[in-house]
Amino acid sequence: WCQAAAQKFSGGIGSKLCAILLLIFARHAIIYYFNAIMLFFIFYFLFVFFTDLLPALDGDAKTMNFLQEVVDIMLAYIVESFDRSTKVIDFHYPNELLQRNNWELSDEPETLDDILISCRATLKYAIKTAHPRYFNQLSTGLDMVGLAADWLTSTANTNMFTYEVAPVFVLLEYVTLKKMREIIGWQEGRGDGIFSPGGAISNMYAMLLARYKMFPEVKEKGMSSAPRLVAFTSEHSHFSIKKGAAALGIGTESVICIKADERGKMIPSDLERRIIEAKQKGYVPFFVSATAGTTVYGAFDPLMAIADICKKHDIWMHVDGAWGGSLLMSRKHRWKLNGVERANSMTWNPHKMMAVPLQCSALLVREEGLMQSCNQMQACYLFQQDKQYDLSYDTGDKALQCGRHVDIFKLWLMWRAKGTIGFEAQIDKCLELSEYLYNKIKDREGYEMVFDGKVSLIRCIFIFLFFLVAPVIKARMMEYGTTMVSYQPQGDKVNFFRMVISNPAATFEDIDFLIEEIERLGQDL
Amino acid sequence: WCQAAAQKFSGGIGSKLCAILLLIFARHAIIYYFNAIMLFFIFYFLFVFFTDLLPALDGDAKTMNFLQEVVDIMLAYIVESFDRSTKVIDFHYPNELLQRNNWELSDEPETLDDILISCRATLKYAIKTAHPRYFNQLSTGLDMVGLAADWLTSTANTNMFTYEVAPVFVLLEYVTLKKMREIIGWQEGRGDGIFSPGGAISNMYAMLLARYKMFPEVKEKGMSSAPRLVAFTSEHSHFSIKKGAAALGIGTESVICIKADERGKMIPSDLERRIIEAKQKGYVPFFVSATAGTTVYGAFDPLMAIADICKKHDIWMHVDGAWGGSLLMSRKHRWKLNGVERANSMTWNPHKMMAVPLQCSALLVREEGLMQSCNQMQACYLFQQDKQYDLSYDTGDKALQCGRHVDIFKLWLMWRAKGTIGFEAQIDKCLELSEYLYNKIKDREGYEMVFDGKVSLIRCIFIFLFFLVAPVIKARMMEYGTTMVSYQPQGDKVNFFRMVISNPAATFEDIDFLIEEIERLGQDL
Repeated sequence: WCQAAAQKFSGGIGSKLCAILLLIFARHAIIYYFNAIMLFFIFYFLFVFFTDLLPALDGDAKTMNFLQEVVDIMLAYIVESFDRSTKVIDFHYPNELLQRNNWELSDEPETLDDILISCRATLKYAIKTAHPRYFNQLSTGLDMVGLAADWLTSTANTNMFTYEVAPVFVLLEYVTLKKMREIIGWQEGRGDGIFSPGGAISNMYAMLLARYKMFPEVKEKGMSSAPRLVAFTSEHSHFSIKKGAAALGIGTESVICIKADERGKMIPSDLERRIIEAKQKGYVPFFVSATAGTTVYGAFDPLMAIADICKKHDIWMHVDGAWGGSLLMSRKHRWKLNGVERANSMTWNPHKMMAVPLQCSALLVREEGLMQSCNQMQACYLFQQDKQYDLSYDTGDKALQCGRHVDIFKLWLMWRAKGTIGFEAQIDKCLELSEYLYNKIKDREGYEMVFDGKVSLIRCIFIFLFFLVAPVIKARMMEYGTTMVSYQPQGDKVNFFRMVISNPAATFEDIDFLIEEIERLGQDL
Repeated sequence: WCQAAAQKFSGGIGSKLCAILLLIFARHAIIYYFNAIMLFFIFYFLFVFFTDLLPALDGDAKTMNFLQEVVDIMLAYIVESFDRSTKVIDFHYPNELLQRNNWELSDEPETLDDILISCRATLKYAIKTAHPRYFNQLSTGLDMVGLAADWLTSTANTNMFTYEVAPVFVLLEYVTLKKMREIIGWQEGRGDGIFSPGGAISNMYAMLLARYKMFPEVKEKGMSSAPRLVAFTSEHSHFSIKKGAAALGIGTESVICIKADERGKMIPSDLERRIIEAKQKGYVPFFVSATAGTTVYGAFDPLMAIADICKKHDIWMHVDGAWGGSLLMSRKHRWKLNGVERANSMTWNPHKMMAVPLQCSALLVREEGLMQSCNQMQACYLFQQDKQYDLSYDTGDKALQCGRHVDIFKLWLMWRAKGTIGFEAQIDKCLELSEYLYNKIKDREGYEMVFDGKVSLIRCIFIFLFFLVAPVIKARMMEYGTTMVSYQPQGDKVNFFRMVISNPAATFEDIDFLIEEIERLGQDL
């Protein structure tokens, strides 16, 4: 058309003028076209409702436009999150946040324009967990491959209970659990395991298995069929051990807390003493939970010595490596878990130090078949025994859950993208940053270390200036939104900052910034 | 530039020829340019690794390109999923599927090109749960607003345990749980609740709360401090009641199965008889779990009569409405749950009939404060008591989990997009389709209804031709990939098809198709 028009015009009237006019017209047309598109998108979603999206007839285009708009909002948020000049959080008190937006649910539908506004508002007031200066929890950072995998998981929207409805994900869980067991050091990666909704549930599973192993009749007859069972864990261990004991009908008083040394590691001689003591009282020790990376100090219990004691007294040894288990990926640091290969079970949360998106927690079990017999109820409407495929891939009956969220794909895809050496590099870097922080503040004026010595180096713990200022500095951090670190007491030690580095985006400069920021925020205290 | 060039050329040599040449050149340039872009994208990801993505310096563009490519793969998959001419599943046996792709994890990283190939392969072999002819589970379909919300949840990548790290999501959970309690009919929406990882865990929570309410000392002292506790549920109830009892140390033998009538509804007189019998034996009845929508028959236990019995004997009444709870959203059908307002707790899974993406399960509790005192361990490193904001928003200590996945946003955003009336319309349509199917096959040759009468109408249950053919037809369905329905036995009834309609994409034509397909696949049997 263009060619023909140009020929006609240039052939007809004065060719020079004509060509110019043609080009001016083309330019205007393009500008007009783009403006129209812009205007179109500004008002477009004001007239679109969820009923216009798929499965509506001809809903394809509107669905694509809507989802793409959400993706654009997310992409902008992601890029912003990694930008150090932005705030980690735009903090508001609950009552204030409730008033800043309309969060109420009504009877009538809203337009998709309102839905997009809600998406923007939700991200505006969210914590930027990807921010390089976000250090608040054991799980920080946002991995791009993990994120893509989680989006894809949502898109597949299925359930882990049978091979029938999640063929690929069931296989990937099988492959990944085997690999993790190989890394633990169990022969040929044999054993069992499951991805569960978090470390607390993984720990509860372990306790349940230990009880079943020793007193299988408890499954049918309840705790009254067993003698008084007692479990052991260090005084620094995670509260989920006690929570699990309360839920399982064992009782928190039957969880005996073993003394930890000044660095937070369980004292094996105290463990053995308490086991013997319990036996003398007629109790039955059935479960020892050693911690690989305690929640506050980041301490590693001496697994080898604990394994000796468990073997001697024939007790189930569990390793709660929710936090520290990932060190197994590092040739440089995995010695801290020496002895884990002798454990009966292990909790390992890739959503912590491996920075897999939340949630991703594995329970690994050395004995095959135990999970199945412990938990199965053989519901025949779900686990039909006359299906056409190998039923060992129907993993649902070994779980406490019925439906189970797909948590495997993000870990598997990240592992493919990074390789084991990629995870190793990421973890080694976090430990290097911890050491850097430790060296920087150990002799700095105004700081006091909660404990000295570079034992675990997984995290750095320090008291700044005066014990009681931590909550004030933390509150200011959140109001300024510049960085976030957690504080807490432990035993007789009052509020101190616990600096955890699991964020793959953090650099030496971010550590420098953190120290300067704490000093700035606390200078008038 | 164009304008100037045109002027120069057309002014110089013969204007006609010149304009033509210019346009030919422009056309070639455009084609070349597009080809170059195409080639660029084909080879682009062969040279990009995860280390090039954010948080890498200047990783913005590569990250955007990578995520956009994943989004494009997903968008194509979504559109395809709703297309009836595609297969529901491209089925392969486990060993075959293991060989069809490289699923192994290695030490070395892969390129992002390989990652994209993995994403495509994963979706290729996935079940299309959005497909209008996918009827296999209680959770089917894929809601576009729910999907967008789940993507955004992954992007925010945070944890529900404290307001500090999930301010918006904690508020939305608060708003939504209150709304759900209002719908149940508890005064002013008062009470408590939590979103948990599935209905099995929600039911276990309820049993835990009932035990704590009656014997709070079990938390510290274990089950040995309580008399023998017994729970009651119908013989058609979900297996998670027994699973929960096994885990909590109550024992499966202490779960007394109450007879159900021919339509699968609990018989209240049998319940009362068994309660009295248990009391006579010296046992303590502490928990009755009534089911609103049983897993196989879709039956609704008579809640009003059960509530009377529970009140009389002072027993905790739980309603497992994992499947049928959503009928509360329908003015036309909510009478089936009359009496639920008298329950002490209720499980309600919006991921089933409300088609919220997996997972989304709520436990609702009438008594305020009970969850907190039952489960709290007051871990001071997480739930610091000297924070600057209202600590009632730190919900973590009332959960069994420590970290908790954000399941609320997808439900909340869908509710905004649909309004209560949108959910109602969706549910009413599913029931209408069930009725249509029922009417279509009740007198059809070759079919036999497992039970007659349109009691619940939530699902339609039928036996086709001969009892034993269901597994064969199901296997063929999966191999052809045209549709998927579940089959199972119940009591003395051998394998029959259980037709569940929760898929918002299904239409009358899909029901017609299903019947024709079953007949086609079974014609030689």
